[in-house]
Amino acid sequence: MQNFTFDNPTRIIFGQGMIARTGGEVKRFGTKVLLVYGQGSIKKNGIYDQVIASLKEADVSVVEFPGVRSNPVLSHALKGIELARSEKVDAVLAVGGGSVMDTAKTIAAGVKADPGDDVWDFFTFKKKIKGALPVVTVVTVSASASEMNPGAVMTREEGAQKFAISSPFIQPRTSVLDPTVLYSLSPAYSAYSSVDIITHMLEGYFNNREPESPLQDRLVEGLMKTVMENTEVILKDQRHYNARANVMWSAILAFNGLTTAGMGFVSFPAHMIEHSLSALYDVAHGAGLSITLPGWMSYAVNKSPAKFARLGREVFGIEEADDLKAAVEGIDRLKRWFSAIGSPTSLKEAGIPEGDIGKIAENASVIAAVWGMKAYTRETIAEILNLCRG
Amino acid sequence: MQNFTFDNPTRIIFGQGMIARTGGEVKRFGTKVLLVYGQGSIKKNGIYDQVIASLKEADVSVVEFPGVRSNPVLSHALKGIELARSEKVDAVLAVGGGSVMDTAKTIAAGVKADPGDDVWDFFTFKKKIKGALPVVTVVTVSASASEMNPGAVMTREEGAQKFAISSPFIQPRTSVLDPTVLYSLSPAYSAYSSVDIITHMLEGYFNNREPESPLQDRLVEGLMKTVMENTEVILKDQRHYNARANVMWSAILAFNGLTTAGMGFVSFPAHMIEHSLSALYDVAHGAGLSITLPGWMSYAVNKSPAKFARLGREVFGIEEADDLKAAVEGIDRLKRWFSAIGSPTSLKEAGIPEGDIGKIAENASVIAAVWGMKAYTRETIAEILNLCRG
Repeated sequence: MQNFTFDNPTRIIFGQGMIARTGGEVKRFGTKVLLVYGQGSIKKNGIYDQVIASLKEADVSVVEFPGVRSNPVLSHALKGIELARSEKVDAVLAVGGGSVMDTAKTIAAGVKADPGDDVWDFFTFKKKIKGALPVVTVVTVSASASEMNPGAVMTREEGAQKFAISSPFIQPRTSVLDPTVLYSLSPAYSAYSSVDIITHMLEGYFNNREPESPLQDRLVEGLMKTVMENTEVILKDQRHYNARANVMWSAILAFNGLTTAGMGFVSFPAHMIEHSLSALYDVAHGAGLSITLPGWMSYAVNKSPAKFARLGREVFGIEEADDLKAAVEGIDRLKRWFSAIGSPTSLKEAGIPEGDIGKIAENASVIAAVWGMKAYTRETIAEILNLCRG
Repeated sequence: MQNFTFDNPTRIIFGQGMIARTGGEVKRFGTKVLLVYGQGSIKKNGIYDQVIASLKEADVSVVEFPGVRSNPVLSHALKGIELARSEKVDAVLAVGGGSVMDTAKTIAAGVKADPGDDVWDFFTFKKKIKGALPVVTVVTVSASASEMNPGAVMTREEGAQKFAISSPFIQPRTSVLDPTVLYSLSPAYSAYSSVDIITHMLEGYFNNREPESPLQDRLVEGLMKTVMENTEVILKDQRHYNARANVMWSAILAFNGLTTAGMGFVSFPAHMIEHSLSALYDVAHGAGLSITLPGWMSYAVNKSPAKFARLGREVFGIEEADDLKAAVEGIDRLKRWFSAIGSPTSLKEAGIPEGDIGKIAENASVIAAVWGMKAYTRETIAEILNLCRG
């Protein structure tokens, strides 16, 4: 086990009816809040009304900033920063999924940037985030764990670059999670969410500097089995409270630092390559990951079959004694499970032309460089993408 | 899954050499600290010197308050409150195990009590804790998870009452954990610590209001297997870094709220009865638990054999198909494991006279009443104690 700091102060308020507590949580930080949300689905399913009622009850005035789209873009966040500054809000409240939360985090950090600073420099690590407005979230799509971690992902349209930031300043102070809000999430997006959750865990499981990590391995395996069995329940019964609740809480634990504590540097090759897919094409993040994760696993399996075999045995109950065979069968089982829940597992299925592999690899290699993943050259990434063709 | 709030803001600084960061953490809260410790073992193993050097480096002045004994007593904590008040310290630093941390927490809360308040009223829930000095800990015995939870246990000599408090105000702001400090922990106390850790998990596993909790069950089973296999390594090799580190981190996760999130009210019958054992006799807390936990399990198994069977199958690999048989075998295996690591499993082994069962049950029934465990009358507790005779 390597040295680590675990510092995760987000207050999680979890359960049916809990959105009523939002106003009181925002009020801890002031009386005027920027309300960030997406394309208006929260107005159809009643969440908007619940949030507004709670803010009103707490005497918090609201400045609205809607319009976040999935795979959120910097140009939109910049408008939010401007609005937050001119309205002098005390806090930023995200009501939505990963895209909305990440936009809110970017706005929160951007407001406190020095005048003249280019916010994109935070994403390329040229500048360090030195402060942020307090962020509170009400989660409506559960996958990113952005509600309990210090990260945010954003795309800059110029150059189609999808990069990420991480800073304790933008970690939400409070996140409110009511599993019933997920009832209206479509089967497709419920599946993509579970792919994202599983990928977060498996990237830590396979890509860290700690050769022996029995506790973290068991945490991941337990979480993964829970996510898989409950996703299957949800796809049969969208309004199954316990299944939604189990996935919602697992999503947080999968990516709030718990499963990688003591593991040293963790790299995220499946996310890195997926960022290029969703920056360049109209692909949902989870749908992209169900292509890149098995592709990357097939690339990496020969280097360390034992860990891949462990996954196959512990999660899929594979009894094969030979490590490489068990590993390959495990990857195949995972891929088939992604297919079974309705998430694509090849570039072809997602309508991405094979001929674009060079272009995608070029885009991803820039992310790899920024993320300090030296082994992932343009050529290596192209090799992995070839294993994603289908 | 039931509604819950998870709010655990303690910063954990974990790893070899990390005690050097103590001063900087204390400095966040002021320049004068009350240093609480035990019988002086920290002066022999070098931890005291490391802590003092770090505080000096950070320009923090120190008021010493040593002398905490295991199963800490209120009268001593009251002296600490007096000293902290007269010296006007800004924070309380515990350097020790559960007893020292709990004394530090009691002092921190006591300093902020209203003049004339009886601090013991916090423990009987007659008065509510309304504030506390910031608490920082350097952990030297890892079991209680007091370093990352809001609880503290204290004995009042008058009436031999061992009660507990829980308040977010006394939750440590930062805890520093260096696994190498455990190298000097004796085999006996290493074993007792593991018993305590396992009991914390299993009380949640068996005693909650949520009938179905697959995720929490898996977390507990994964933690328990990790603690068991690493305890066995430690008893062969006291200076095994990874084994010490794995147990040290597992101890926290076993009792920081994670494994019981969403489980509703959890009761602690094995701890409740053990508190009476260690209040009345000179028994180490973990040694008492290896007696009361299997005794309570034998009492409860007939009411819900399925969950006990699950433990037997998942943790001990028992293949028996009949639930009750698998359950009973599991309890027996756990008891034998406690024996194997050197912790007593009967009152007799601990030198506690059978004839005292009535007296112990009387003492424990008072705790049960304060803790809201109505089912545990004097008679029920005596019945459980009869199963602990050996």
